Amino acid sequence: MDASCADELRQLAAEVTRMGGLAEAQVADAVDCLAKRDTGAARALIERDVRLDAMQADIERRAIALIASYGPSGVDLRRAVSAMKLAMNLERCGDLARNIAKRSLVLADADPTSIMRAIERMGRLVSSRLNEVVDAYAVTDFDRALGVWRRDEEVDDHYESLFRELLELMRQDSATVQTGAHLLFIAKNLERIGDHATNIAEIIHFEITGEELTAERPKWSSLDTPSTEDMAL
Amino acid sequence: MDASCADELRQLAAEVTRMGGLAEAQVADAVDCLAKRDTGAARALIERDVRLDAMQADIERRAIALIASYGPSGVDLRRAVSAMKLAMNLERCGDLARNIAKRSLVLADADPTSIMRAIERMGRLVSSRLNEVVDAYAVTDFDRALGVWRRDEEVDDHYESLFRELLELMRQDSATVQTGAHLLFIAKNLERIGDHATNIAEIIHFEITGEELTAERPKWSSLDTPSTEDMAL
Repeated sequence: MDASCADELRQLAAEVTRMGGLAEAQVADAVDCLAKRDTGAARALIERDVRLDAMQADIERRAIALIASYGPSGVDLRRAVSAMKLAMNLERCGDLARNIAKRSLVLADADPTSIMRAIERMGRLVSSRLNEVVDAYAVTDFDRALGVWRRDEEVDDHYESLFRELLELMRQDSATVQTGAHLLFIAKNLERIGDHATNIAEIIHFEITGEELTAERPKWSSLDTPSTEDMAL
Repeated sequence: MDASCADELRQLAAEVTRMGGLAEAQVADAVDCLAKRDTGAARALIERDVRLDAMQADIERRAIALIASYGPSGVDLRRAVSAMKLAMNLERCGDLARNIAKRSLVLADADPTSIMRAIERMGRLVSSRLNEVVDAYAVTDFDRALGVWRRDEEVDDHYESLFRELLELMRQDSATVQTGAHLLFIAKNLERIGDHATNIAEIIHFEITGEELTAERPKWSSLDTPSTEDMAL
């Protein structure tokens, strides 16, 4: 392989890792803003999101320029394409973190209920998954990425249990309906960040092996339609 | 330009248009399933979603192979990259349509309230926007794409009004909390499809002009933080 192509691929991977670090921090901070009702930190987080947008645009531009200049194939092509896809997933995590921060502003005066603490726990879990999968990418650790992928259901279980609890709360006390609705969306945002962590694990797997990792993932069966036991879509 | 490259770009654009047609149909059908409480149609729609996933993967593979083989620049490179981005946005519209169809299964026995009709109206609006922007792409109609982009706020206004109405309903009658929660998520999914239609308009603009279309979009200002008048995030 062309030495400049190898160099550029390394730089690209470093930039993705750097973006991963920022996305991780945004998610962890969003959970903190919510937990501490820190509106100043939430506003700062919202402003910072443009950095992730800029990083994504930059990674995409560089990856495409690299493909157009060197016409790589095999693992090199996969590395360039993965960089683009990882950046897209990380940018979406940033958007979801920003959305949580915005909702935390609305919830700044809400009572600290036990459900708020359950959301924080889910937030810490999701944030640690993102952290783990970004680390797996940084050191090209296949097994670690696979570990994140295999534990996809934990986040979904948290979400389903929160969905039920929030609905029960809203049913019992109509004064909690607005807070409850925002918390439902926050829980959904966290679940989506968990999905992105799983996507990232799949992209890393594909980059390394050239094979798709979708067959055994428990969640997305072709009969993934809700039953009465599956109301928390 | 290489004649085979021009040919492949044309085929790629045709494939994106075809995918756009299917994504549009999925969104329109999802709204219909909900309106008519047609669980059979909803299940068929959910199964059909894999086609969009396959089309996206195919478009992406072909666009990248084209960039790697011909090393295009300028408008040709933009056309190849746009094809990939459009496919991603269309695939997400398909996911959101599938999600609406899944929720319509849960809501099959819910009372047809006036709010359900308001959601259907929002659904028709969003579906027509997606239709318009896919048409704009098919015939490279810059002004039409710009028209969709400029009317982004209509969908948001619908969403905000639905959010408030649903919360009021849930507050007044605790028996509506579960249905209301699913309808909140459906309204949010429709708003997201509207966002994708706007993204698609931006991608078309960039493909044609080489310039970003983001400056005047009213919604995403850097001070886009909620006030007390902006509770429906």
